Amino acid sequence: MSTLDKTPVKRDEILFEYLVRLADDRLILGQRLSEWSGHGPELEEDLALANIALDMIGHASGLYTYAAEIEGEGRDEDDLAYFRDDIDFKNFQMLEQPKGDLAYTIARQFLFSLYSYLLYMELKDADDEQFAGLASKHLKEIRYHLRHSREWVLRLGDGTEESHRRIQDAFDDIWMYTGELFEMDEVDKKAAEEGFGADLAKLRKPWKEHVDEVLDEATLTVPDDNQYMASGGRTGFHTEHLGHMLAQMQFLRRSYPDAEWT
Amino acid sequence: MSTLDKTPVKRDEILFEYLVRLADDRLILGQRLSEWSGHGPELEEDLALANIALDMIGHASGLYTYAAEIEGEGRDEDDLAYFRDDIDFKNFQMLEQPKGDLAYTIARQFLFSLYSYLLYMELKDADDEQFAGLASKHLKEIRYHLRHSREWVLRLGDGTEESHRRIQDAFDDIWMYTGELFEMDEVDKKAAEEGFGADLAKLRKPWKEHVDEVLDEATLTVPDDNQYMASGGRTGFHTEHLGHMLAQMQFLRRSYPDAEWT
Repeated sequence: MSTLDKTPVKRDEILFEYLVRLADDRLILGQRLSEWSGHGPELEEDLALANIALDMIGHASGLYTYAAEIEGEGRDEDDLAYFRDDIDFKNFQMLEQPKGDLAYTIARQFLFSLYSYLLYMELKDADDEQFAGLASKHLKEIRYHLRHSREWVLRLGDGTEESHRRIQDAFDDIWMYTGELFEMDEVDKKAAEEGFGADLAKLRKPWKEHVDEVLDEATLTVPDDNQYMASGGRTGFHTEHLGHMLAQMQFLRRSYPDAEWT
Repeated sequence: MSTLDKTPVKRDEILFEYLVRLADDRLILGQRLSEWSGHGPELEEDLALANIALDMIGHASGLYTYAAEIEGEGRDEDDLAYFRDDIDFKNFQMLEQPKGDLAYTIARQFLFSLYSYLLYMELKDADDEQFAGLASKHLKEIRYHLRHSREWVLRLGDGTEESHRRIQDAFDDIWMYTGELFEMDEVDKKAAEEGFGADLAKLRKPWKEHVDEVLDEATLTVPDDNQYMASGGRTGFHTEHLGHMLAQMQFLRRSYPDAEWT
């Protein structure tokens, strides 16, 4: 059962789909971040990453809860998180990639937090009170994630020879997943028309300018946009990594659907 | 290199040891709790356990930082967390036990949070301003952990037949590790004399009364105190589980002491 077997038409269907996409992004990234638990480079950064993971999963939870309410078919946030298959997950492929080294985690966090920041600056004025409320509540935390990850980009880029090489490699590796962030499909267009979705294409310019600025300050080279760009997360097309992650995350819950044990 | 090769004599040595003990308890339990990440029974409880884990590790971090400052030998919080061996860890054996099922995690959290609450009610008036400040800052969060875990004890005890059986088994299994919490050794006695340590033996009565009360309300049987009680965590004597956990937690940091990579 897919969350979206065909393009939604009614306002509530579009809003449901839009919320689930945002929630999927955050659940999946939160999951990846939580893999750092106990493996961070230092206690303070361990805590910071765990904190960001918690925020991400918390945001996902809020979005799923509202999506389930909009759907009104008796599913709840847990059904959306634990009982959908990878083809039903609509997260960007960038977010399902393995955590890699700290540089990779930081590069991804910076790129996605900046994107989220720009997006939520729009969504906080969404023409749906409850959605706008969630967005503006989450924005405060996103601002912190952005600041934190930007500081690390600067610290690693302008650090040792190895840290510079690592973070440059990270940006080079992840760049092919950035194109997807700004694609506008039917759902995005309809959401924008309904007044609760942002024009993603318009976010690209300020996003790119800020990335250029920070990478420049970090003595890093911005990767070339003229390269193969992955796409398809929003239609349920994923890399093999998502399936593995979901298997682990959903296994216990699906094996014992009524039990609170594991 | 042990944190304590002989009984400390000077005030600062005693305070250092006292702080490290408390920090070890919280780091180890926080680590165990963070193993739930992505495996909780539901999104909300996943978040709650992750939140408590984060608090625990945050408290440990604050205590280690202050301990390192007191020690004044150039070690920092990370050295204390990542570069001591299991024999140097002074946490209670209760806290290093594997996370088990949710019932076990909840039973442990309830027993330890109640203990921490009673202990920190004393420590917040410690005759050391910085320590007292930490204790009273952490107390607010401990109160939440206690409330949360108590609610779950009631929910599971007074729930289904299976949940009742599971939580009763959990209390029965963990009980042998509760004796250690109230033992007063030389360090505890000296800390109390110096005005910054609590009389642990005196905490036993209010702790037991509240446990009795909650377990009774949860329709559970309080395990018998006249059974073998484990002991030795405070002298670096541990079950095999601690070594495995530390190996995993410390491996990367020790392999690449100067790198922030993994």
